[in-house]
Amino acid sequence: MGLFSKDIKSMDDLFVHTLQDIYYAENQITSALPDMIEKAQDPELKAGFQKHLEQTWNHISRLEKVFELHGIEVEGVDCPAIDGILEETDEISDEIEDATVLDAALIAAAQAVEHYEITRYGTLVAWAKELGRPDCAELLQQNLAEEKSTDEKLTKIAESGVNQRAA
Amino acid sequence: MGLFSKDIKSMDDLFVHTLQDIYYAENQITSALPDMIEKAQDPELKAGFQKHLEQTWNHISRLEKVFELHGIEVEGVDCPAIDGILEETDEISDEIEDATVLDAALIAAAQAVEHYEITRYGTLVAWAKELGRPDCAELLQQNLAEEKSTDEKLTKIAESGVNQRAA
Repeated sequence: MGLFSKDIKSMDDLFVHTLQDIYYAENQITSALPDMIEKAQDPELKAGFQKHLEQTWNHISRLEKVFELHGIEVEGVDCPAIDGILEETDEISDEIEDATVLDAALIAAAQAVEHYEITRYGTLVAWAKELGRPDCAELLQQNLAEEKSTDEKLTKIAESGVNQRAA
Repeated sequence: MGLFSKDIKSMDDLFVHTLQDIYYAENQITSALPDMIEKAQDPELKAGFQKHLEQTWNHISRLEKVFELHGIEVEGVDCPAIDGILEETDEISDEIEDATVLDAALIAAAQAVEHYEITRYGTLVAWAKELGRPDCAELLQQNLAEEKSTDEKLTKIAESGVNQRAA
């Protein structure tokens, strides 16, 4: 974005900027997940992260389709929010030796990522509808539904014994 | 946290660390909200942010009570996640001139903040229960409920006309 001009002039510009933000975020998540898969000890959690990595590639494809439908170039934009969330994940997991405590921390970190995506997709779906792009809204809604489902699965894994073993 | 030692040794340490993380986050939010109140144009949104600032002070008091109940010093710890989310709020609002588009962006930014808090409080409530601290869990649950309610109110304000006017 420019330093001396106000680059977001319309709701459409804001929609595109937020699309670029989540596109960057999804790509950063594909870089972070392999490390989380490696660190996770609980087999269900490890498999859950692995499945989410495959899902994330699918989310990226859907976002590329949204860019195309909207007639704009596929492009990411720096997203300090996801960078901060992932930096915190790294920092905390480096501080933990015990495998069961680390699993609990990894679930919490992954849920922070999910919630960031849930809020951005929720916003994008609403804006796409206002902008008369039900086709884009539908694809974004599919990503939103999967992020919500992943968040719920992480809660179930935490409750199924990870938190109890860690405590 | 230490550079050469693994400082989080138990689930209790992880709970305390996450408590310090959200304590820092809530304090950063009290610094960010006055600017958002000033920038918001929609009267309902402005009033909503104002109310949330008062609520945030209350959340900080409840967190201080949790520190006290748990027998630990009140202390924050750097939280790159909330710093990133708030940095993004600043960056985007500096790029927007149109007041209605800015309102839509401010709602989206505030919802990203709410979702960060929702995920952290959700985790803390679950961990407090596992650690046999229902007294702490109850206070954290009160903060969680208010964050969820704020998020829902923001969605209603967006849907009540802000997004439509912006588009």
